[in-house]
Amino acid sequence: MTEETDAASDVGLHGPVLVVGAGLIGSSVAMALVRAGVETYVTDSDPTTAHVASSRGAGSDKPMATEPELVVIATPPDALAAEVAVALDAFPDAVVTDVGSVKAKPLAELRQHRNDLSRYVGGHPMAGSERSGPLAAAADLFDGRRWAVVERSDCDQAALALVKRFARTCGADVVTMSTEEHDLAVARTSHLPHLMAALTAGQLTQAPTEHLALSGQGVRDVTRIAAGDPQLWRQIVTANASALTVLLTELRGEVDVLLESLQSGDGEPVQRILTAGAAGAGAVPGKHGAPALAFGTVLVAIPDEPGALARLFTDARDAGVNIEDLRIDHDPGRAFGLMEIDVDERDVETLIKALRTRDWSAHR
Amino acid sequence: MTEETDAASDVGLHGPVLVVGAGLIGSSVAMALVRAGVETYVTDSDPTTAHVASSRGAGSDKPMATEPELVVIATPPDALAAEVAVALDAFPDAVVTDVGSVKAKPLAELRQHRNDLSRYVGGHPMAGSERSGPLAAAADLFDGRRWAVVERSDCDQAALALVKRFARTCGADVVTMSTEEHDLAVARTSHLPHLMAALTAGQLTQAPTEHLALSGQGVRDVTRIAAGDPQLWRQIVTANASALTVLLTELRGEVDVLLESLQSGDGEPVQRILTAGAAGAGAVPGKHGAPALAFGTVLVAIPDEPGALARLFTDARDAGVNIEDLRIDHDPGRAFGLMEIDVDERDVETLIKALRTRDWSAHR
Repeated sequence: MTEETDAASDVGLHGPVLVVGAGLIGSSVAMALVRAGVETYVTDSDPTTAHVASSRGAGSDKPMATEPELVVIATPPDALAAEVAVALDAFPDAVVTDVGSVKAKPLAELRQHRNDLSRYVGGHPMAGSERSGPLAAAADLFDGRRWAVVERSDCDQAALALVKRFARTCGADVVTMSTEEHDLAVARTSHLPHLMAALTAGQLTQAPTEHLALSGQGVRDVTRIAAGDPQLWRQIVTANASALTVLLTELRGEVDVLLESLQSGDGEPVQRILTAGAAGAGAVPGKHGAPALAFGTVLVAIPDEPGALARLFTDARDAGVNIEDLRIDHDPGRAFGLMEIDVDERDVETLIKALRTRDWSAHR
Repeated sequence: MTEETDAASDVGLHGPVLVVGAGLIGSSVAMALVRAGVETYVTDSDPTTAHVASSRGAGSDKPMATEPELVVIATPPDALAAEVAVALDAFPDAVVTDVGSVKAKPLAELRQHRNDLSRYVGGHPMAGSERSGPLAAAADLFDGRRWAVVERSDCDQAALALVKRFARTCGADVVTMSTEEHDLAVARTSHLPHLMAALTAGQLTQAPTEHLALSGQGVRDVTRIAAGDPQLWRQIVTANASALTVLLTELRGEVDVLLESLQSGDGEPVQRILTAGAAGAGAVPGKHGAPALAFGTVLVAIPDEPGALARLFTDARDAGVNIEDLRIDHDPGRAFGLMEIDVDERDVETLIKALRTRDWSAHR
C-alpha cells in the first residue's frame, strides 16, 4: 500500500463525469464533483431517485451531450460487475471506476465477460452512514477520508492516474493497494466489525425493555453500525465470503476459548483475550488517521516536589519500558500533577507494577 | 424493575459516608458526595491512592471521628464480598452498599459467612471509563446515569431507602431490580458487548498497519470499550460466568450460521442476522435514556405540491404500517422536502416497498 500526495502533474478532472447509481455514495460523489466545478451527470435504475439526487445538487439527470471522461459505478454490490461492463461497452474512450466495498468478486465476474479491463480501475471510499439514498448524501462525505484505489498490472496508467485525481477531487486521501490486500483489509476493519455489531445487537432483541434501561455508552457504540441497511450489508458480506470465513473461523475458536474459560473458572484465557482486545483497540488509527500504534496509557500522579519527574523517568527506564509519548496536566491548587505516559500496550502492566513498587501512584 | 423518582420524604444523606476503594468509581462517588456537601472519607488498600483521591477532592483520607451512616465498597470485584463483610462487622449501625458490576456471586459468598445481611443493599452505577484510578475520576460521572439498586426480601427497608438517596445524591437516576435480573441485564448490555469488542479488536492485532489505515468510524466505535483494563474486566466477566455462558453459547450458534451461510452462498441467514442486528441497534435507548423502542427510520422525498403529505399518509396507512414519529425538513430552494418517518424496525422494508410502488422516493 502506498499513500499518495498531490503531485505537480496532478491536474484536475476535465469531465464530464457520469455517476451510475444515485444512492448515498453515488449522490455524494456527484455532489462533491459539482462542488469542485466538474460537469456531472447522475443516473439510476429508478428515475425518481436520480431526479431527487439531481434536485439536491448531484448534477444533471438529463442525457449527456458528449461522452464522459469518467464513469463512476455506484450501484449495490450485486449489480456492480454488470454495470462496469455496460459502461466499458457504451463509452469506448472513458475510464470506468466503482465505489464498491469488495473488489475480487466483481473483478472475477468481469473477467468472465471481457479480456481487456485496462480502462477499469476499482476504488473504494472509506465513508458511509447508517442511512442510505440520495436524501442522506452530502458533498463533504469524503473530505479527509481514505479512498482505496486498487492497482492491477493490467490497468492503463493514465486511467489509474485519472481515478486517483477523481478521488482527490472528491476530497479524499488516496491509498493504493492490490485487489486481495484490499478485500482482506476491509474484512478486518469493516465487514467483521459489522457482523460483530449485528450479533451483539441481535442479542438485545431478546432482552426485556427493563434490561435495556441499563444500556450505557459502551453498548451504544458497539452496536451503532448494526443499524446499517441489512440488504446492502448482506451483499457486501457475501461478496467477501472467503476473507470473512478465515476471520470468523478464528473468532469462533476464541468464543470457544471464552466458554471453556468461563466454565472451568480459569480466568487466564479470558484475560489473554481481553489484553489482546485492549492492544487492538489501541491499534485503530485515530479520527485523523494518526499512526496506528498499539499504545496504552499509564496515568501517574506527580508530587509537586523537586526532582519528581527525573525520578519517574529513571524508574521507568529501570523497568525496561520505553516511553513513546507523554503529556503533563498540572491541576492548579492540588498537591499532585497528572502525567499521561504512552507505552507499548504490552508494557502497560509491567510499568504500573514497577512504578507502584517504587511508591508511585500509577493507574491505567 | 421500577424507575424511582424523588419523593417528598426523600431527604438527603446525613453522612458521614466512608468510601472503601479509591479507584475511578470510588473516587468519583466520593467527589460527587463532597459536591453535595456530604462529609466523606476515602480509604484504599494503597494509602498513596487514597491520598491522591483526597487531594483531588474526594473527601478526607484521615481516620473518621464517628461511625459512618453509610459505607460504599468500591473495590475490584474479587475483593468485594470480603470488604462488605468487614464493613458490616466494623460498623454495626451503618448501612453498607457497593458499586460492583455483578451481584449474585458476591452475595452468595457473603451468605456463606453471615446470616444477617439486612444492612447490605447492593448497587451498580451505569457509568465508567476506559481509564481507571483516582486520576480519571470526576464528580459528575454519574449525573443523569442509571444506578441499579438491588432489592432483596431480606433487606432492611430503611437501608434500601438510604442507598437510593445516596445514588440520587451522586446525581444518578435509580432503578430497582432483583439480583438475578440485574446480572442478566448487564450480561446483555455490558459484559457481552465488552467481550465482542475485545474479540473484534483482538483480530486487528494481527493486521498489518497498511490494513488498519482503512479503519473508519465504525471499527473505532465497535472496539472503543475494549481498551478497558483487562484485569478488571477479567474479574467482572468471570464473576458473571453463568449469565454470559448462556449468551455466548447462543452467539456461537449464530457464528456457525454465518459461516455456513458464507460457505453455501445462501445469503438468507446472513440477512436474517443483519436484520435482527438492525432491530437490536434501534432498541438501545438513546443518550438520555429515551424509551427503548426498536424503531427504524424511512426517508421520503416530499414534492412541493398540494396534498403531497395527505397522499403519503394515506399510502403508508394502506401499507398497514403504523407511523410512530416523524420529522420534516424542507430545504429551501429545492423542489423536494425530506420527511423522516419512524416505524417499527420490522416494518421498514414493507413501508419502503409499498411507497416505491406508489411512486415515492423512499430510502432507509
